[in-house]
Amino acid sequence: MSEGVEWGLHCCMVLTWLEDRAPIATGKLAEMFELPPEYLKKRLQPLVREGILESTPGIRGGYRLARTPERITLMDVVGAVEGRTEAFRCTEIRRQGAGVTAGKSEFAKPCGIATAMRRAELAWRRELADQTIADLIADAPANASIRARLFYEQLTA
Amino acid sequence: MSEGVEWGLHCCMVLTWLEDRAPIATGKLAEMFELPPEYLKKRLQPLVREGILESTPGIRGGYRLARTPERITLMDVVGAVEGRTEAFRCTEIRRQGAGVTAGKSEFAKPCGIATAMRRAELAWRRELADQTIADLIADAPANASIRARLFYEQLTA
Repeated sequence: MSEGVEWGLHCCMVLTWLEDRAPIATGKLAEMFELPPEYLKKRLQPLVREGILESTPGIRGGYRLARTPERITLMDVVGAVEGRTEAFRCTEIRRQGAGVTAGKSEFAKPCGIATAMRRAELAWRRELADQTIADLIADAPANASIRARLFYEQLTA
Repeated sequence: MSEGVEWGLHCCMVLTWLEDRAPIATGKLAEMFELPPEYLKKRLQPLVREGILESTPGIRGGYRLARTPERITLMDVVGAVEGRTEAFRCTEIRRQGAGVTAGKSEFAKPCGIATAMRRAELAWRRELADQTIADLIADAPANASIRARLFYEQLTA
């Protein structure tokens, strides 16, 4: 998994804490975590494309959450950054070799291996879909939001 | 995920069906699915290393399951082929930028994002660990084992 997931989730948290100061410029957002601004910008593009972040262009532009943190799940962010292709790719080798002579009806149901792998993938997705940015915020140390706000004040002073 | 997982799981199933004819030569095993034998051999090496398959060298050598199909989980095979590194890598960016001034105690607990991502990873692993080669065998079409045995008889006739 790319660092885009880690960056994206942290940025969603910070944008929640700084909602009243939004939009937050890319450069400032990058400084909140000492990240390379141009690269961060690239990493946040899929989140803008998928309606998780809202991006305002221009010198006073920047990012804000496009919806409330209760309505952004970890699956939304992971899916936006990493895509939604399943990790396991079934190439149907059951139809090859010994499978060549099988009747068509035998392949009516998906391959059991693909089904088993999908079951695990769905458990993973379900767990990610069950957790929101609001949950991350609720579990964060109380100080983290205060520090984020103070740090941002200093950046923009 | 590499095709090694698909190949490895199918091979475990076939080796279960052909247990009484083991060891099964790489070339024959490859023909069961029309796979490139040298490449299949490479893909099965981690399964041998991790004690899932047993490999006998020599002209009459080949593969057999190293333990019963009830004792080989999908997690064993996926872990052997793909390694056991978690998909999400936390680089602790919470300590950077706004986090620099945080007290040490604030980092006593792992980052909430890492914890949330781990929860999903564990759900995935649990699901894979709950399913065995024996389960895949039980769910396979009855014909599949008969076909596999017939096909192998023809290969070795």
